[in-house]
Amino acid sequence: MEETKTLPLREEKPATDEASGAAPSKNALKKAAKEKAKAEKAAQRAAQQQAASQASEAADTAKDLYGKMLPSEDVGQITHFKQFTSAEDYYEKEVKVIARVDNARGQSAKLAFLMLRQQGEKIQAVIFAKEPLSKQMVKWTTGLNVNTIVQVTGVIKKPEIPINSATYSEMELHVSKIYVVAQASQVLPMQVKDAERPPPESEEEGLVDSEGAPIVTLKTRLDNRVLDLQTETNQAISWISSGVAQLFTEYMLKSGARWIFTPKLGGSSTEGGADVFEVAYFKRKAYLSQSPQLGKQMCIAGDFMNVFEVGPVFRAENSNTHRHLTEFIGLDFERNFEHHYHEVLSFAEEMLVFILTELKERFKKEIAVIQKSYPKAGDFHLPKDGKALRLNYMDGVALLKEAGVDVSEQERFENDFTTAMEKQLGRIIREKYDTDFYVLDKFPIAVRPFYTKACPQDPKFSNSYDFFMRGEEIMSGAQRINEVEELEASMTARGVDPKMEGFQDYLAAFRQGCPPHAGGGLGLNRIVMFFLGLPDIRLATLFPRDPGRLRP
Amino acid sequence: MEETKTLPLREEKPATDEASGAAPSKNALKKAAKEKAKAEKAAQRAAQQQAASQASEAADTAKDLYGKMLPSEDVGQITHFKQFTSAEDYYEKEVKVIARVDNARGQSAKLAFLMLRQQGEKIQAVIFAKEPLSKQMVKWTTGLNVNTIVQVTGVIKKPEIPINSATYSEMELHVSKIYVVAQASQVLPMQVKDAERPPPESEEEGLVDSEGAPIVTLKTRLDNRVLDLQTETNQAISWISSGVAQLFTEYMLKSGARWIFTPKLGGSSTEGGADVFEVAYFKRKAYLSQSPQLGKQMCIAGDFMNVFEVGPVFRAENSNTHRHLTEFIGLDFERNFEHHYHEVLSFAEEMLVFILTELKERFKKEIAVIQKSYPKAGDFHLPKDGKALRLNYMDGVALLKEAGVDVSEQERFENDFTTAMEKQLGRIIREKYDTDFYVLDKFPIAVRPFYTKACPQDPKFSNSYDFFMRGEEIMSGAQRINEVEELEASMTARGVDPKMEGFQDYLAAFRQGCPPHAGGGLGLNRIVMFFLGLPDIRLATLFPRDPGRLRP
Repeated sequence: MEETKTLPLREEKPATDEASGAAPSKNALKKAAKEKAKAEKAAQRAAQQQAASQASEAADTAKDLYGKMLPSEDVGQITHFKQFTSAEDYYEKEVKVIARVDNARGQSAKLAFLMLRQQGEKIQAVIFAKEPLSKQMVKWTTGLNVNTIVQVTGVIKKPEIPINSATYSEMELHVSKIYVVAQASQVLPMQVKDAERPPPESEEEGLVDSEGAPIVTLKTRLDNRVLDLQTETNQAISWISSGVAQLFTEYMLKSGARWIFTPKLGGSSTEGGADVFEVAYFKRKAYLSQSPQLGKQMCIAGDFMNVFEVGPVFRAENSNTHRHLTEFIGLDFERNFEHHYHEVLSFAEEMLVFILTELKERFKKEIAVIQKSYPKAGDFHLPKDGKALRLNYMDGVALLKEAGVDVSEQERFENDFTTAMEKQLGRIIREKYDTDFYVLDKFPIAVRPFYTKACPQDPKFSNSYDFFMRGEEIMSGAQRINEVEELEASMTARGVDPKMEGFQDYLAAFRQGCPPHAGGGLGLNRIVMFFLGLPDIRLATLFPRDPGRLRP
Repeated sequence: MEETKTLPLREEKPATDEASGAAPSKNALKKAAKEKAKAEKAAQRAAQQQAASQASEAADTAKDLYGKMLPSEDVGQITHFKQFTSAEDYYEKEVKVIARVDNARGQSAKLAFLMLRQQGEKIQAVIFAKEPLSKQMVKWTTGLNVNTIVQVTGVIKKPEIPINSATYSEMELHVSKIYVVAQASQVLPMQVKDAERPPPESEEEGLVDSEGAPIVTLKTRLDNRVLDLQTETNQAISWISSGVAQLFTEYMLKSGARWIFTPKLGGSSTEGGADVFEVAYFKRKAYLSQSPQLGKQMCIAGDFMNVFEVGPVFRAENSNTHRHLTEFIGLDFERNFEHHYHEVLSFAEEMLVFILTELKERFKKEIAVIQKSYPKAGDFHLPKDGKALRLNYMDGVALLKEAGVDVSEQERFENDFTTAMEKQLGRIIREKYDTDFYVLDKFPIAVRPFYTKACPQDPKFSNSYDFFMRGEEIMSGAQRINEVEELEASMTARGVDPKMEGFQDYLAAFRQGCPPHAGGGLGLNRIVMFFLGLPDIRLATLFPRDPGRLRP
């Protein structure tokens, strides 16, 4: 497969900090002449070195055992680090692995150590110049650039003392062959190992920890996200993110729901107005969807009964906070109910309990890894009886009042809780009920969107609910108005014009008969963030987008 | 739950065609006076009727058995049509169902028939005025607007002769109670039953079939997509679409892949240039992602090893064809390989065989329904041995040449196959190998994107492949170049500037070391379309978007 058959021996030497010159002066010309002479000397030296290296290569007993990957070596079973569940099973066995060089360290002319890294996990490799292995091979190995991907063959041995800096501390790989699969540049914008610890709260560059090691800011990490993703912590976080999507989908499909895909491009900006991104669409304008709300409700009107969607949601809010993104992943669901919207609410509560319980169960190893950097990751409390805690909104108000918080606006139904109140309520509820996940039901109608169904018993309230994790909202949902006159009246009462172009299809769907239904929308990134207790939503997002960031 | 407790008795009577008047003239004033008198008479009549109706209501033995849903009725087990797998099990049993009125037909003052529809499936209901059921109740029932959602209680009986117009032809529901759950307007823009047959090829309005029934054009269907989705055919198609997403995800997760979400908003337009939608992003510009290509490759460089994504893909192509959309769902995957890109190709072939085989197995009922309108739906041929047919591109060229097609451009590697050639090749392959799914490998390098790896044995070709269903492309994929110098050289050779802002992060990912990998991107909507043999991709899309359509 590989075309080149000769050894490359560090072809790549990117230029390091060279000061850029000013306009040419006499001095500069002199300098240039000097440098030319210097370059000529260097070329001569290089030629000598090459000749020496060729001579040494000819004498190298190991010359086929290292270098750029040989086509002849490109076969055989590859073992993954994840397979090393029991060290004992591998002692004295030969394995072939593909991994990155996390660091390379020469101990002597005859002995070198490599830390190999695969998906953030580390194992130590040893190379000792005993024939056929040569000193040249040891030297070449110690010169490998950090992050280079190598294929290594060797025998697994039990190290004399456990290697605490490695993930597989009871194993050591004694190298017999080593080839470069993909070369990494000598200069990296940051070291993966320096991104292993959580970022500092400050964005100041050049910080070091108590041992003098650099602490990489969140900005630098995100600017170099590909390197950042290689850390053990980020590998684990991205598995949790994958797991949330998987568990949501699993639960929904098991319930008989249909997987839908509503369009993200629409002809008019409805829901919201100002916070919507405008798109140049041929000779007109389009808008990016702020939620699949109208689309999924139209599916319900289209007799789909039980639907869900996993997809991007776009918010043109200029919010630069720890929990806002301009693009995030929405987990949306909507379904008919037969007698009462609590059928759907219970369904959603069970879904969240399922997702959170299974995350803890299926991703134990990943959570343990994350916990090393973010200690809260392991302490998410779920209700002991497996049933979600459901309180009414006014119970929440009462709990805050009891704690001495001024909730006069909330008692007058003028405002929803502030973020600070939500967090405090989260702490109170954790103390009182020992759970980090809970539900508030029956929000005041005044603080909910126009399509929310009022509570028939007391129209000051509504058949709507929010879900919280560690005192922060992860889902908003409600019974939706399903009769067109009621919907139009609700829109008018809130100053939303039912005659607006974008609502025509939506209202038509209700005019043609729509069953009673309820649903909700979850934020995947927020679930990951709050489940793991991460300080910033960007840490829970593969390539985050915010008002200031559109790359990488 | 419901607030209103009185019977509504057809509250809603939307105005029908009233010609709009011109400027008031003498004649007009005369006419107005006349109409006033007419209106007064009508009001008098209405009052009389109301009095009569109240009197009759007082005498109505069935008055609590029909009308708007009563809170007291809002309980008890609801049966879904899908549960009626065996008619016999339900004979003489009472059930309660929620369904739409597909049509209501009075046979006499004492007897009426209702066709009830649920998710496109139909069952006949009979209402007979035998005490406590009254003539008033029969009359009210026959007056129900088509599409109104009702809750019906009754006993299932075996009809004397099978009801061929119903899905459950061996069942008849003898009504004892009927309540309106959600009212439909008297005037619908189209009838669901008229959308049951496939749309005509022409977009001309007012067409009728051989029996005089209207044939609804594709445009009218899509304009009224919520009603259109209620047809049995569209219910089934949307299940196939859900199934494709489910099966792809299932296969990928089982393989150990991680579910990723790459951003759809990016700071620069890369891949393609002209065909990208521009977004107003605060005070700058952003661009909608044309594919997750760069994002998923950056995950591979970030040590993810095996990833997949399910998400929207945006193409600003002004293509108005049967198989192009401006927004569709991409099923993308990318993974490392150890020795040869055929590891990934085999993985993808097995995935497609899995998806198509399981669709046939798990969605038998839906396919049978779709087949009634689109006969090809049931005849998709898969290789008998369960192994995908893989040919080289040049084998395809040879097959076409054998059939007398002019492939001189293809033989000179100047152009890829035309759509017509692809379709013809599909027919040839079906005849020769009896399969509608096949793979072409080793495309000429000249017709593939810059990140495609050349074939080491013959650099005129590339390590790239396309997947086809019924002679149309559903996937494109390849081994990707994973070394930065090779990538930059390939970009430059194709006139793509590696210094372009949008490529900096992408190239950095390779500079930092990236393992050999390959992948592909499938179009979900195309898989649904070609699997079922639908004539237009819009029929395989929930709410399609094309250059002319941004709604509903």
